[in-house]
Amino acid sequence: MRENTKWILSDREIPDAWLNLAALVRNEYPLPVEGEAMRPLTVQGLSSRYSEECARIELLDGSYGTDLDISIPGEVMDQYRKYRTTPLFRARGLEKHLGYEGRIFYKREDFNPTGSHKPNTAIPQALYAKEQGLRGLVTDTGAGQWGAAMAWACRNYGLECTVFMTRNSFIAKPYRRYLMELAGALVHSSPSEMTAQGRTLLAENPDHQGSLGIGMGEALETVLHGDGFRLALGCMSYYAALHQTIVGLELVKQLAQAGVEPDVLVACVGGGTNLFGFMSAYLLRKLRGDPGPEMIAAESANVPSLTKGEYRYDYADAFKLTPKVKMYTLGHQFLPPKIHSGGLRYHGKSPILSLMVKKGLVRAIAIEQERAFEVGGLFYECEGVLPAPESAHAIAATIDAAKLAKAEGRKKDIVFCLSGTGYLDLRGYADMFGLKP
Amino acid sequence: MRENTKWILSDREIPDAWLNLAALVRNEYPLPVEGEAMRPLTVQGLSSRYSEECARIELLDGSYGTDLDISIPGEVMDQYRKYRTTPLFRARGLEKHLGYEGRIFYKREDFNPTGSHKPNTAIPQALYAKEQGLRGLVTDTGAGQWGAAMAWACRNYGLECTVFMTRNSFIAKPYRRYLMELAGALVHSSPSEMTAQGRTLLAENPDHQGSLGIGMGEALETVLHGDGFRLALGCMSYYAALHQTIVGLELVKQLAQAGVEPDVLVACVGGGTNLFGFMSAYLLRKLRGDPGPEMIAAESANVPSLTKGEYRYDYADAFKLTPKVKMYTLGHQFLPPKIHSGGLRYHGKSPILSLMVKKGLVRAIAIEQERAFEVGGLFYECEGVLPAPESAHAIAATIDAAKLAKAEGRKKDIVFCLSGTGYLDLRGYADMFGLKP
Repeated sequence: MRENTKWILSDREIPDAWLNLAALVRNEYPLPVEGEAMRPLTVQGLSSRYSEECARIELLDGSYGTDLDISIPGEVMDQYRKYRTTPLFRARGLEKHLGYEGRIFYKREDFNPTGSHKPNTAIPQALYAKEQGLRGLVTDTGAGQWGAAMAWACRNYGLECTVFMTRNSFIAKPYRRYLMELAGALVHSSPSEMTAQGRTLLAENPDHQGSLGIGMGEALETVLHGDGFRLALGCMSYYAALHQTIVGLELVKQLAQAGVEPDVLVACVGGGTNLFGFMSAYLLRKLRGDPGPEMIAAESANVPSLTKGEYRYDYADAFKLTPKVKMYTLGHQFLPPKIHSGGLRYHGKSPILSLMVKKGLVRAIAIEQERAFEVGGLFYECEGVLPAPESAHAIAATIDAAKLAKAEGRKKDIVFCLSGTGYLDLRGYADMFGLKP
Repeated sequence: MRENTKWILSDREIPDAWLNLAALVRNEYPLPVEGEAMRPLTVQGLSSRYSEECARIELLDGSYGTDLDISIPGEVMDQYRKYRTTPLFRARGLEKHLGYEGRIFYKREDFNPTGSHKPNTAIPQALYAKEQGLRGLVTDTGAGQWGAAMAWACRNYGLECTVFMTRNSFIAKPYRRYLMELAGALVHSSPSEMTAQGRTLLAENPDHQGSLGIGMGEALETVLHGDGFRLALGCMSYYAALHQTIVGLELVKQLAQAGVEPDVLVACVGGGTNLFGFMSAYLLRKLRGDPGPEMIAAESANVPSLTKGEYRYDYADAFKLTPKVKMYTLGHQFLPPKIHSGGLRYHGKSPILSLMVKKGLVRAIAIEQERAFEVGGLFYECEGVLPAPESAHAIAATIDAAKLAKAEGRKKDIVFCLSGTGYLDLRGYADMFGLKP
């Protein structure tokens, strides 16, 4: 009997709880702290920046500090059912190209609304804001995956959405901006004239290219001076990581359905929530001391937080407006090289993922962006699927893992997360492949 | 028990034969003919333009004239398995927005390689060319869905691919061109300097906007003066229509799995192969005299071939280089209005679909392009899925059908084909919604 090439689950099988791994490692998990003095934060204090529910999650308040399963609200489930479960695909074309006799699978988060894994957390964040009676959410975005998801989720709940988009992406990736504006979001090129910090940076350098840390700082300044707005983070926060566990909880069911016990899991890492979510169900096994697959984090060699950063408390934004969080970081004032166009540009990696790396459960490698784009083009040829440059980092690491297994004469089952579509990044591909603009 | 929101079939259930409806209506089916004299064509004669297998299909040669089921070659099945079956989705978000108590479903051909239904025929066409030992294929494309699919399929079989892309799309839709060029295709803005006919048109009007008929003529001129190349058509040909029946054969199985007997089927119409393929399994029922769903063809009001054209023999291209085919046509020299950006720009509709319309099995309506883009934006909000403008015509017709059913107090099950993604058409959306470039 022919083996399948793709799997989805029925609506009944969509997981109805997120996997709250921080509760399991609560004694080791470093909570965010306030300022240079590193004061402990209260939910009330943090609620001036995040929605109350997000503040509770961030500080592991109440059930978030004790319960491994966090029920997904019904309204979120209604939205999830629109697009989840995402299919798991077998990459037969890539296997054939590599002459690889093991199996390669990938989870299609590119099929989601707005083309990436980001709606998995944008939806609950928007719902919390609506239930709290907020007017809207403010956020930052680099390549635009997060901004597009947040804009769409806000529109679904009747909320206003303001996005500070890193300047070089604002210019180079108009299609993602269109996607945000179609959903009614107000999108500013960051650094912008909208904030004091943005004006300062532009006065120093009118061509300032921006960074995620700067965008986050501008977003937070806007929140602190506004009324009824809060900051929404697509990465770096624990709440975003928690919501992404839906991906891993589906994955474990789908692989069971396919009769596969994975040997290697691979995901790209920007802030780290995509990887954490994708691997969550297997991290649970490892945290409980059971054997589990090898776990590989593919980061950008241009932004090598995990492979070259330090594990310490640092600010999530460039202006020190956010709490300090303990993470692998290149420093909150880090700017990626100007040539960088492959996404994954955040200076730090989310605390929960950083802890998993620190504990040795996840191994990080760095991928050069030229190689990521090349591999993206190869995957497009083999599978007909154009990955976001971010996701192409994971494919490069997958290919390395397959080649290694082949050299060792082993047939490993390797599973990676295709976190986003490359259709909105075609300009980046065109530049990298030297196509006429 | 909760009803599902999406369905795919296992690999074993992927149909392994195309549905050759022309064989069933062979006595009525008007074959293509040669020139003003309307001479009958031979397979050998037509093989100077198309690959031999395509010429055989086009003239219903041998088994193509007798067999209702045409086995899908194993190599094509291997490619189909990469992405098929495409999921069937329930549009709960749109139903809720409309306050519609019936059900609305849609088939996700936007999930295919290159983002549209076009690979379903590009793959077999490339395989035929490879098996014949051709060097490559030449084709025309408007918005670029077809060119992207053909380029990708050619790359998969090691063939060269040349695409004449309608000039206004070449300028306005660079992302689709990048997609073709990433797969190694040579893409020319049409009318081009590459052909005598193109040079003549440019001499008359250096800003000539082009049309699909002109692109097809340039492609055919290139074939007739080249060596080892043939024309590949994504619409208008019967072979393209035949290959698209895979969509309808899946649909009938998926709807059975969902326990749905559809009341209305809706698809957009450019050349007509998307609609024909999508509705094929239900057309079979109707042709056999069984009752079947209402069938609605949504064409562009800017290119109203079915609603305002004549049913007669006409050329498929602007230069009279192709055979004449009997179809609903606006005349082979028809140019869509310059403001047109919604796709579906072909002057005629494929002979097999035209026959179905003539027989009263399919009813055509025309949708204004402004409305199509608006509805596309609405669908994006409700479902998180941005449709190609072409597909948005089908959504507009679906909404009309739902409103009518609601007014009549009926709960109809309406199913439409989401033939392509809108991510590559965001510039068109941006223009139509007045977003800053």
